[in-house]
Amino acid sequence: MKENLKKYLTELIGAFFLVLTIACTGLLGSDGVIAPLAIASALMIMVYAGGHISGGHYNPAVSVAAAIRGALPWKQLIPYIIAQIAGGALAVAIFTIMAKGTIIVIEPSNFGLKGLLLAEFLFTFALCYVVLQTATTKNTAGNSYYGLAIGFTVLTGAFAVGGSLCAGAFNPAVAFSVGLLGIIPTGLVLYTILANIIGGICAAIAFKMTYTEQE
Amino acid sequence: MKENLKKYLTELIGAFFLVLTIACTGLLGSDGVIAPLAIASALMIMVYAGGHISGGHYNPAVSVAAAIRGALPWKQLIPYIIAQIAGGALAVAIFTIMAKGTIIVIEPSNFGLKGLLLAEFLFTFALCYVVLQTATTKNTAGNSYYGLAIGFTVLTGAFAVGGSLCAGAFNPAVAFSVGLLGIIPTGLVLYTILANIIGGICAAIAFKMTYTEQE
Amino acid sequence: MKENLKKYLTELIGAFFLVLTIACTGLLGSDGVIAPLAIASALMIMVYAGGHISGGHYNPAVSVAAAIRGALPWKQLIPYIIAQIAGGALAVAIFTIMAKGTIIVIEPSNFGLKGLLLAEFLFTFALCYVVLQTATTKNTAGNSYYGLAIGFTVLTGAFAVGGSLCAGAFNPAVAFSVGLLGIIPTGLVLYTILANIIGGICAAIAFKMTYTEQE
Amino acid sequence: MKENLKKYLTELIGAFFLVLTIACTGLLGSDGVIAPLAIASALMIMVYAGGHISGGHYNPAVSVAAAIRGALPWKQLIPYIIAQIAGGALAVAIFTIMAKGTIIVIEPSNFGLKGLLLAEFLFTFALCYVVLQTATTKNTAGNSYYGLAIGFTVLTGAFAVGGSLCAGAFNPAVAFSVGLLGIIPTGLVLYTILANIIGGICAAIAFKMTYTEQE
Repeated sequence: MKENLKKYLTELIGAFFLVLTIACTGLLGSDGVIAPLAIASALMIMVYAGGHISGGHYNPAVSVAAAIRGALPWKQLIPYIIAQIAGGALAVAIFTIMAKGTIIVIEPSNFGLKGLLLAEFLFTFALCYVVLQTATTKNTAGNSYYGLAIGFTVLTGAFAVGGSLCAGAFNPAVAFSVGLLGIIPTGLVLYTILANIIGGICAAIAFKMTYTEQE
Repeated sequence: MKENLKKYLTELIGAFFLVLTIACTGLLGSDGVIAPLAIASALMIMVYAGGHISGGHYNPAVSVAAAIRGALPWKQLIPYIIAQIAGGALAVAIFTIMAKGTIIVIEPSNFGLKGLLLAEFLFTFALCYVVLQTATTKNTAGNSYYGLAIGFTVLTGAFAVGGSLCAGAFNPAVAFSVGLLGIIPTGLVLYTILANIIGGICAAIAFKMTYTEQE
Repeated sequence: MKENLKKYLTELIGAFFLVLTIACTGLLGSDGVIAPLAIASALMIMVYAGGHISGGHYNPAVSVAAAIRGALPWKQLIPYIIAQIAGGALAVAIFTIMAKGTIIVIEPSNFGLKGLLLAEFLFTFALCYVVLQTATTKNTAGNSYYGLAIGFTVLTGAFAVGGSLCAGAFNPAVAFSVGLLGIIPTGLVLYTILANIIGGICAAIAFKMTYTEQE
Repeated sequence: MKENLKKYLTELIGAFFLVLTIACTGLLGSDGVIAPLAIASALMIMVYAGGHISGGHYNPAVSVAAAIRGALPWKQLIPYIIAQIAGGALAVAIFTIMAKGTIIVIEPSNFGLKGLLLAEFLFTFALCYVVLQTATTKNTAGNSYYGLAIGFTVLTGAFAVGGSLCAGAFNPAVAFSVGLLGIIPTGLVLYTILANIIGGICAAIAFKMTYTEQE
């Protein structure tokens, strides 16, 4: 039990810094290459910092995929998701205090529904697929690249579709926090979360179709 | 046989995300540092995700080089190439659905033939040379850097010659997909593919001239 | 004793190049993505170069966190901090000689106190948390990612809050040197150093709350 | 003997792609973040591709430092340097053919002598220090980060002082090639080479002052 609390705290800390970085780089007026690079780095460093404790998910879609794959006990799924959302919400609260007066008010972006669903689905699929292949298998155990691969999947997705077709969340906890921040309208937040979860489920299936444990 | 299907599916998934990222960053109006960084990341993450299954080629020139070097059975070469091209074509199809209305129509770039041939040859050579040295040898077995090195070879080539002298494909499956997208004219696509294959063959020769297995 | 001198010299060299890079990229007119990327790289390379000798702190807040965590003998704490500050001051001196005539005189930035304290605290916390988790534990011993994770934590913080809410020091030796360079007013330097030290102490507590040695 | 030829060929290939990337990104009109990132990547990928064969120097200053440190037999020093310069000269020749018509004629930059000498000395020192610490010691044997650290030292130096205070060569073979390309005047090329060699010698001394083999 006590060990589990350590995992939940680790998930909270990681999701906190991920969402804090999203809030800061999205709302303090940076643009272009900076936000994707900063957000990918935030995920990468927290995956490396907490991977050995909680697996370093910081993302309910990843936790769902990990549970289906057998890398997370099902009974820890809900606490993981609560910790991730709590971390994100805490980041939004701290950000609001910290950046008061410097926040640039932005109009919510209104993406097309079909493009948003496909884009969020595809890159959440990619993210969960990369997590399962690099961070949950015996064949790749002990590698030093998993955080780099996971973080830079978000970089790839953010550059490819983030901002143009969707918010580039690839993560329901991020989508929820981005909704709190008013970056995208609430309706699209729900579709984003739906596409993220389906992406995670499909990634777990793709993992099972491609991976074989070596003897 | 079933194991081979897993490899082909892995190659299809990786080539899909590589070409999807190229289509998105090339046709949704990003420019400068973004496309090369996104494309290099897409390759890197898919190499790390699938390297332990299929070798993570996603590139017919790499598969040809790997076959010559003895790292891919010759009878798997054609299925690998089919999977890679199918992944690329699927990405073009999905991209067309997903990005409808946001695509920026671009004029095909008309590169000089001599510069294009040399540039595509040289950096496909570099790419295959890096793959063979970092991902197929006993002396470097178990390293965690192969995906970083392979992905960032494409970054180097894209920055060095992509856009100015050639399309920066360094990969026949990418060249084919870029042709489908209308980024470069069909005639130059064929020359690009030719230069890519010759680059792969020469890289296999250079590998054999430089590498010695340690006892 | 002689071994300790090697550690202090290593800390001096690393802090020297970290501060030299900050001075050069902050005062020679670069901006945007360049300074954070250069500074993160400077830290990363020096962590990899000196990690096996001194731990590669180059930062009094990290040394404090490491001492609390039991990864640095308390009696080495003061010599470490002296070496780090000496390295920073030496860099400022050499920079002044080297860049004479090319320095762009900048107005000191006057940040809001609440935002500065929170921002410096949070990302120094993140930095020390990442250091303790990736570079001082048995569970992650022998990994190759610690320098990447540590360096890119500074990238994340610099992009997220550096320049907009605070100077992005996350390091008392850097804050001191930045004060010497006149980038931020002296009063804010002292608050920065205070926030950095508290961040390091809290990170050591968070580490103890999350980490368990595997049997 | 035959093994030595493999090493020299590896050095030639690596120096070729390093200088080719410098020529392409320096003379085809890219600027800002692109050239340093491309050049650092070129070095990184070639260090990873050839490190297990020749050590992956591609730089006479590194070879001098490695010889002093005992990581390169003295009798191989001259052949290494010849291979490195030959690779650079070949790249200049191929570039001239390949890029004909697209080269942007640039005025040679005339840097101040004191700034140039200090800047080239300091970051060549950093580069050779990083190489010796990460790629030639028992304490760090088998790590996967050496290429990343070495490549990104050039990124750091290029951002910090390249273009503003000096050409950012940190490498006599690069300085020679940059001279052939007419980027900086011949007189300054000689001073650059001198500063590079002294930087390598001092790095070897600093290495000996800081490193101790673990029992």
